[in-house]
Amino acid sequence: MQTAVIAGVGPGLGESVARKFADEGCRLGLIARSEDSLRDLADDLPTEAVAAPADLSEPDEIEAAFETVRDSLGPVDVLVNNASAASWTGLQETDREAFDQAYEVGPRAGFLCSREAVDDMLDGDGGTIIFTGATTSVRGREGAVGFSMAKFGARGLAESMARELGPKGIHVAHVVIDGGIRPPGAAADAEEYLDPDAIAESYWHLAEQDRSAWTLELDLRPHVEEF
Amino acid sequence: MQTAVIAGVGPGLGESVARKFADEGCRLGLIARSEDSLRDLADDLPTEAVAAPADLSEPDEIEAAFETVRDSLGPVDVLVNNASAASWTGLQETDREAFDQAYEVGPRAGFLCSREAVDDMLDGDGGTIIFTGATTSVRGREGAVGFSMAKFGARGLAESMARELGPKGIHVAHVVIDGGIRPPGAAADAEEYLDPDAIAESYWHLAEQDRSAWTLELDLRPHVEEF
Amino acid sequence: MQTAVIAGVGPGLGESVARKFADEGCRLGLIARSEDSLRDLADDLPTEAVAAPADLSEPDEIEAAFETVRDSLGPVDVLVNNASAASWTGLQETDREAFDQAYEVGPRAGFLCSREAVDDMLDGDGGTIIFTGATTSVRGREGAVGFSMAKFGARGLAESMARELGPKGIHVAHVVIDGGIRPPGAAADAEEYLDPDAIAESYWHLAEQDRSAWTLELDLRPHVEEF
Amino acid sequence: MQTAVIAGVGPGLGESVARKFADEGCRLGLIARSEDSLRDLADDLPTEAVAAPADLSEPDEIEAAFETVRDSLGPVDVLVNNASAASWTGLQETDREAFDQAYEVGPRAGFLCSREAVDDMLDGDGGTIIFTGATTSVRGREGAVGFSMAKFGARGLAESMARELGPKGIHVAHVVIDGGIRPPGAAADAEEYLDPDAIAESYWHLAEQDRSAWTLELDLRPHVEEF
Repeated sequence: MQTAVIAGVGPGLGESVARKFADEGCRLGLIARSEDSLRDLADDLPTEAVAAPADLSEPDEIEAAFETVRDSLGPVDVLVNNASAASWTGLQETDREAFDQAYEVGPRAGFLCSREAVDDMLDGDGGTIIFTGATTSVRGREGAVGFSMAKFGARGLAESMARELGPKGIHVAHVVIDGGIRPPGAAADAEEYLDPDAIAESYWHLAEQDRSAWTLELDLRPHVEEF
Repeated sequence: MQTAVIAGVGPGLGESVARKFADEGCRLGLIARSEDSLRDLADDLPTEAVAAPADLSEPDEIEAAFETVRDSLGPVDVLVNNASAASWTGLQETDREAFDQAYEVGPRAGFLCSREAVDDMLDGDGGTIIFTGATTSVRGREGAVGFSMAKFGARGLAESMARELGPKGIHVAHVVIDGGIRPPGAAADAEEYLDPDAIAESYWHLAEQDRSAWTLELDLRPHVEEF
Repeated sequence: MQTAVIAGVGPGLGESVARKFADEGCRLGLIARSEDSLRDLADDLPTEAVAAPADLSEPDEIEAAFETVRDSLGPVDVLVNNASAASWTGLQETDREAFDQAYEVGPRAGFLCSREAVDDMLDGDGGTIIFTGATTSVRGREGAVGFSMAKFGARGLAESMARELGPKGIHVAHVVIDGGIRPPGAAADAEEYLDPDAIAESYWHLAEQDRSAWTLELDLRPHVEEF
Repeated sequence: MQTAVIAGVGPGLGESVARKFADEGCRLGLIARSEDSLRDLADDLPTEAVAAPADLSEPDEIEAAFETVRDSLGPVDVLVNNASAASWTGLQETDREAFDQAYEVGPRAGFLCSREAVDDMLDGDGGTIIFTGATTSVRGREGAVGFSMAKFGARGLAESMARELGPKGIHVAHVVIDGGIRPPGAAADAEEYLDPDAIAESYWHLAEQDRSAWTLELDLRPHVEEF
């Protein structure tokens, strides 16, 4: 039985990934700011799960959250870096604090969470780290300087880690989500959105790939998306 | 029950994809030059399968092969464009015939097979087309002008088709196979190769993706590959 | 004094490149189908220039055109592969002939012209080959299967050639022209177009780059272009 | 007469760019940590130049340096973001401080310097901002997690800014320097290095491009480089 940590669990993709990985038998460590909603989700999962509330822009809180997960569920086998700060403003409208925040919640949290998880994975028999990317990970977005920097930066980190850690048995993958994820209230058949449960299927496929044929990057988009 | 056509079936990846898709319940149409080996494979599959021998550089033979498949198995739901001509020579060593051959077996065969299959898919309820790409699809290879042109060309075709056909319910995907596929005689645990059965798992995942979250491109490589 | 060949000279970019390179002192070999307009341009250039009419889809005519250029101007130092066939049609509307034509005028003509020019360059002291690319060279275009295949294919060829020929002193570059080139009749200040004379400045910069810092690819677009 | 600021001036590329832009008639603002070497260079340039010492990881010092430049030379027309922190270590060997430092000197300094310069450019008649990238800007480097994050991040920032600022008359470009720049002591004919003076020629070309045909990105490498 594997232990998976989702860093950045909201009501959309993070929850869907947690449910899918639990359905496949993983224990779940859930990290996000809101303790209450994490507990609700943890209670609702079919496997052992622990809420580890943390502000991902705070290094100490990240360390403590992984401590919480390890104490309850043992060493980490799978990490999903799912957080990003989304202030979309242009160059002159963005202050240094917002730019720093995009860095801290994005690539830096990905780095700090990965360092925690990789310690466990190297002690064990490898593992999987998945980064949630976006259209903006591969195409700098007009009017979103901080988000563009952060999503590119996290992708660069993921590529570097993939080259370093692959030979050591750790699969690092980056998923470019090219479109809007269906928000909780939207109609289930709204074709313009990605279904978060469908995204979670591809995340699980990545976690299951044989090490002779690992994917570094794949994109996902609705079939009607113009791109 | 779906009908899948593999265009370019050799003892490596084509056979593994055929076996995986048959295991998942697909009928199989097998296209390649060697009738005998196609028949042997068709006989060995657990589902209905038909050998449709053709030289993929010959438009008439492609047309006839699809006729053969349709007559036996009905309209096509899945197409895997798996063929490529592999003469790896530099600019001055490549004659026009070899360059034309790379075009004809690569992007042109992909185009002609796709046209055949899409006719069926548009009449039915959509379908999936997968192109087998290579490292050279995204990085022109020194000393391989024809192969570089052909693999880039097929990728451009795939991207164009994905944008045109996605909204019509046809999923077009391109897989960058970044490394050597394990040849039939090699040791099963030789880490430097991609296991063709593992590649076939990702092909099947692509064929199964929900249309709200389709992948245009993914890469696959052995965990020890330097890239 | 260098000899430059423009393969694919129309009233737009080809003419501007010819004029710029002549202004910088190059002799010019001009290849296109229309002999009359080539002669008019050749007569108008400030340096020695020769019209070498050819249908670039015909290998024999390409060979003859280079013979004509060499007889008049000596060995070739610079080649600009500027031709492409522009039928923009989707998968089901494109017949094999149109697809083949896109290949023949695009990557194959680039290949054949390059082979001719590289013979001269290797005998001399190197040279420069520039491919005119388009938005579609890096992004498969919906409803343009032949053009997408051809522009990707030519880019793959260019990358392969750059890796092979760079160490031999031949600079191969690919220019992604991302937008419409100002047509002859349009207003000189129409901001939505690329000025072909401005493009020609960058082509000349590529031809002049020191071999310690060569560019494989650059993009060009109007400052108002959305991309 | 234009005012150009080089943020990150060392004895290699920064100095060559400063000399080239001064030769072309620009006034120069020079930003780096070492006041003495900045003054020596400023004194040696043929045009007006000012040393504006600053630690680029310190926002207040960046602001003060631009104040110094403006007081002496007037508003900024050209900015070259040339700094980056180069600690090349893998995931487990990189501490948070080193990762933060890569962010602060790389994408954040690029962001803060650009904000300063763009204020001037929007008040005037446009301008040019060039980011110095590296191989690692487009290919995450094994064993260099901070550098990979920072170079990708700066590229994402540059792309975002190019889309936002192009229509406002500000040309943002990103140069991928794919190879080692010749260090001060190395032989002038050492073919394995990029000559910083040759790189500076392409930077100047970017600053001179007509707004109808601007480049977002170009790569530069020695002709013998394997890539």
